[in-house]
This record gives sequence, C-alpha cells and structure tokens, in this order.
Amino acid sequence: MTHSFAVPRSVEWKETAITILNQQKLPDVTEYLELTTKEDVFDAIVTLKVRGAPAIGITAAFGLALAAKDIDIKQYLNSSRPTAINLSWALERLSHSIENAISVNEAKTNLVHEAIQIQVEDEETCRMIGQNALQLFKKGDRIMTICNAGSIATSRYGTALAPFYLAKQKDLGLHIYACETRPVLQGSRLTAWELMQGGIDVTLITDSMAAHTMKEKQISAVIVGADRIAKNGDTANKIGTYGLAILANAFDIPFFVAAPLSTFDTKVKSGADIPIEERDPEEVRQISGVRTAPTDVPVFNPAFDITPHDLISGIITEKGIMTGSYEEEIEQLFRGEKVH
Amino acid sequence: MTHSFAVPRSVEWKETAITILNQQKLPDVTEYLELTTKEDVFDAIVTLKVRGAPAIGITAAFGLALAAKDIDIKQYLNSSRPTAINLSWALERLSHSIENAISVNEAKTNLVHEAIQIQVEDEETCRMIGQNALQLFKKGDRIMTICNAGSIATSRYGTALAPFYLAKQKDLGLHIYACETRPVLQGSRLTAWELMQGGIDVTLITDSMAAHTMKEKQISAVIVGADRIAKNGDTANKIGTYGLAILANAFDIPFFVAAPLSTFDTKVKSGADIPIEERDPEEVRQISGVRTAPTDVPVFNPAFDITPHDLISGIITEKGIMTGSYEEEIEQLFRGEKVH
Repeated sequence: MTHSFAVPRSVEWKETAITILNQQKLPDVTEYLELTTKEDVFDAIVTLKVRGAPAIGITAAFGLALAAKDIDIKQYLNSSRPTAINLSWALERLSHSIENAISVNEAKTNLVHEAIQIQVEDEETCRMIGQNALQLFKKGDRIMTICNAGSIATSRYGTALAPFYLAKQKDLGLHIYACETRPVLQGSRLTAWELMQGGIDVTLITDSMAAHTMKEKQISAVIVGADRIAKNGDTANKIGTYGLAILANAFDIPFFVAAPLSTFDTKVKSGADIPIEERDPEEVRQISGVRTAPTDVPVFNPAFDITPHDLISGIITEKGIMTGSYEEEIEQLFRGEKVH
Repeated sequence: MTHSFAVPRSVEWKETAITILNQQKLPDVTEYLELTTKEDVFDAIVTLKVRGAPAIGITAAFGLALAAKDIDIKQYLNSSRPTAINLSWALERLSHSIENAISVNEAKTNLVHEAIQIQVEDEETCRMIGQNALQLFKKGDRIMTICNAGSIATSRYGTALAPFYLAKQKDLGLHIYACETRPVLQGSRLTAWELMQGGIDVTLITDSMAAHTMKEKQISAVIVGADRIAKNGDTANKIGTYGLAILANAFDIPFFVAAPLSTFDTKVKSGADIPIEERDPEEVRQISGVRTAPTDVPVFNPAFDITPHDLISGIITEKGIMTGSYEEEIEQLFRGEKVH
C-alpha cells in the first residue's frame, strides 16, 4: 500500500553524507543540510535542526555509520540530548550490529545497513501507530496536540500526527488544534506547516489558550508524542504536555500518548528518574533573534516535563493500545505479547 | 507615607495632552507618547500601547476630558476594548461629573478634575490591595503570576503585583515566577521588566512551563489581576489565567484574584455573559514582526478567558479579601460593608 504524502523527509542517507531537513528554518525556508562529520551530526541535534525522538535516533544511527572509524563517537552523539531515549536505543542497536563483524569493512557495511533498517522500520511503526490510534477518533472530532510528533520528527507519518494523515486518506475529517509550543515553537513552525502541507485542517493557538479552547471548541481528545516512557507509564514529553494532561483531566477529555516501543525505557521505574534537559535561557528571552524580555532576566527553561501515568487515558504503540494498567501492559509488550 | 518607586508612570495628564509610557516598545526602549486627539487615545488603547484595565480606564477618562467638546467621544472610546469593565466605568464617572455643570467651561474643569481624581484614587486603591494581599504570603514564598497586573497597568503599584512592592519595602523576600503571556508577551516584556526595575526577584518562564514549575519549584500561590468580575465572582482576565487556575487547583495551590471595586460588573450575572475580545490572528502568527507560523494558518486568538468562581481561593480588593461566598460577599461590598 503506498500513500501519497506531501511532507518532506526528515532524514536521508546519502552514502557519504546524511541529508536533513533544517527544521530551524521552517516554515519560511525549506532547506536541506548535508552532515558529513560527527561534529555536524552533534550540532544538528543540539541546535534542533533535526528533532523529534525517532528522527534524532535515526540521525545519530547514520552519524555512527558515517564516522565508524572513530571509537568515541557513540558516547559523543549520545550526549547531544539527554531526555529522548530513542537516541541511545538507536546507538545501542548499531553497536550490536557490529559485534560479530570480522573486518572493518564488514562492520561499516553492517552499520549502514542497520541504520537504514531502523529508518525503514520506523516508517512502518509510525503507520501502525496511526492505524491503531485511528479507532479512537470519529468524523468531526477536534483534537489538540502540542509540539511536533509528526512526519518530520520521525522517518515518516509521525506518532501523534500519524492518525491524522491516515484519517485524511479515508476522508474522515478531523480538526486539529495545534499549541504553538514555546519556547522553540515546534507547534507553529512545524506542526502547523506540516499539517497544511498534508492538506489537514489545523488551527493554531498559543499554549496559554489550551484551557479556553478545550472548553469553547469542545475538544474531543488530546494526543501527544513522547521522548521517553518509564516502566510505569510516566511519560517525558515536550514542556507543556503535563499541563495539557491536567487540563484534559479537568475537562474529562481523553489524553493519549502515541509512541513506538523504542521510546520505552524499562530500565527506568518512574518519571522521577528521567533526566530533564534544561536549555539556554536565551530560548525564552528571544524569539528568532528578537528580544522579548530584559536581557538579564533570570529564566527557568526545562525542555520537557513528566506526565504521570494516571493522567494518561491510553498509550498507543505499533503493537496496540494500552489503557491504564501500564506496569503490567508494558511488561506484556516487551515479552512480545499483543496488548489491547 | 511615601514610597520610593523606580517604575515609570503609565499615564500622566499634561493639560493639553496625555503622556503615556509606550508599553509596546518595552523592555527595549522606554518611550513616552503624547496623545492629543481622541483618535490618538483610541489608537493607544487598541494597539496596546497603554494596557491594563485600570490604566485603560484612566487614559480614557483623560481622553474624554481632552476632547470634551466632541459629544460622540464617550461611545467612541468605550468601543476600543470590549472586555475590561474599567473603561466604561471611568467614562460613566466622567459623564456624571458634568451632569450639573452650568457652563461649558465648568464642564471641562469638572472632567479634568474627575479624571485626575480617578487616577489619585487608583493609586491609593492599589496600595490598599497590596496591603490586604500581603497577609496571604510569608517570607520565602514563590508566587506565580501571568500578564502584567502591575504598576504600569494601573496608576501605580498595580493589583496582583502590588503586594510584591510592599513586601520588598518590608524586606519580606518573595520570589515571583512570571509567565511570559503569549501572544502579546506582557509577562516577559512588562512584568519581568517592571519587577526588575523595582529590585524584586523574578524568574521568567513560558506559559507552557506553568505545571512543571508549580511542581518542581513548589509554588506557594498564584495571583492574577482581572479585567472584569461578574456578580458571582467569575473572573475575566488575560488568556491563560483559566488554565493556571485549573493547574493550581490540581496542585492544591491557592489561586488569588486582585482587583479594585471598579473591576466588578454587578450587572453581569456570570462569566458566560462577559464578551471575550478576539484579536488579530497576526498576534499569534508573528512575534515582534518575525513570522513564527505559516502565513495563512488559521488562528484562534481570544485575548481573555473566564475563570469560574469555584477555582478562586480569594478575591482581594481595596476593601478586604473575599473568600468563597462571592455572590453574597460582592453584594455586601457594594452595600459599602467591609468584607473578610
């Protein structure tokens, strides 16, 4: 089954380079960057030129394949973003792929093959997440999301946005309310842009409008992505997600997390053990280089927050939907059993 | 009792003109504008050069005094912002002041006198609100606020920010977390700037960080201003306030509204009857002229929301603190009885 799909690819392997869509320049400019060194890859991840937990994992995997001769590169790339688990997951998979290689050439071939395999699998995974999520929505539903858990955050389709692309193909009209997602504005710069490219109805709001919009526009559900999910279902995602979950709970609106198995970190018991990246205060003091606050004002700039599992109505994976007994369901999932 | 006070005045009467602090240019440039015509005054209010419910009321009052010969001006100025009740309250007070004037000259003198009186009273009112609110906080408390209910939104001191200025004079260290307040950024541009001018500890966060900050920084209380308060205590205030009230409730943090009696609209039964101004979509698509979203993305841009009275722990006025039986307490208040 092929899908026509107007949104550009986030990451592509080009043998001697990795091509990425520069997400910092969107929506003004659709620019592609060639990454040829480990420093290029590190910088692209740190400065959010490539972003989204799955896309970060894929880019790092290609980065490792590109610079395989350098033994420190795995640790180096792994340090570029602390919260998204997919980054270390992808790098681990690449390490395993060369464990039994008997020559440097075989190792290099294995790395490239494994990185491409991760990307191919991610596309199918996202399609399955979309497929599984689709049953949660009905025609005319108004769905709220934050950040960009979309096609350009993954190999394709996205996680939280995947059901909207599939719904569009089935003419199941859904209306999306995208929170702009300060400070980095992934909602306004990326999600609004991506959904418009895909011909999907989207209305942009500021994050501060979420409560009023839930009430006035009768929001049917909230769906978000995830950067890391603990063993008990606690979910790290873009800052603002926790607030949306509390609001959804107050309005009795179902709140869903959409994520692939690679986002689960079963070594982490609960959200309290997930490191939260704090980023440069300038992200809050400025917007696209325009100063919006006093130069020297103290800033608190956590990039993620933790949504406790009891605020999550369902976690949608490529294997099915978990609906509340997360500790048990996640164990089942990793034993290879079907959930739902 | 005089207070040293480093924050510039929001509005001043200059006989042939009204001088206002241009709040659109803050924090980069401290610029004063001279308003000499009713169109100047209307434009200054519509474009948010002067803002804050009390300061809008005062500016409109001076505007009416300035252009008293023009009979349509009251209705004209009243149409500049629909949500803040202080605007029509101040204009009504000016109308009453000339009801018994026996000459045009007497009427003009009365208008100027009444407008100055409103400004002087507002300063004392704000000081009393600060005084009454102060007992709610103890040394070391971490207080969250949104928008700018500060000195430059009123004649002086502000409403929600007034207790912080009084606390500072008593060396009662309070720490303020200011939400930046998208789309117009009154929190980062104005509150952060104003509190820093006053030497008060402030940390800036984006609106999306409110839930995570309440939890991680153990926020002690939330205090906000109001644009209009209905007979039952339902409160219209800057978009984002409703969300903060729901979050505060979820975390068991007290949520206070600080406002003068002039903000109450006892003709309005509940929040459902308060008109919510929807502003230009460009406020959401751009920040200070920099595009942050696709040019043609549909936008929902309500400037205010309604916080239901049952989420409000207390309403602080110049006459005391109301704490829950708002319908009854507001009636008492307007019968001239002391509350609390």
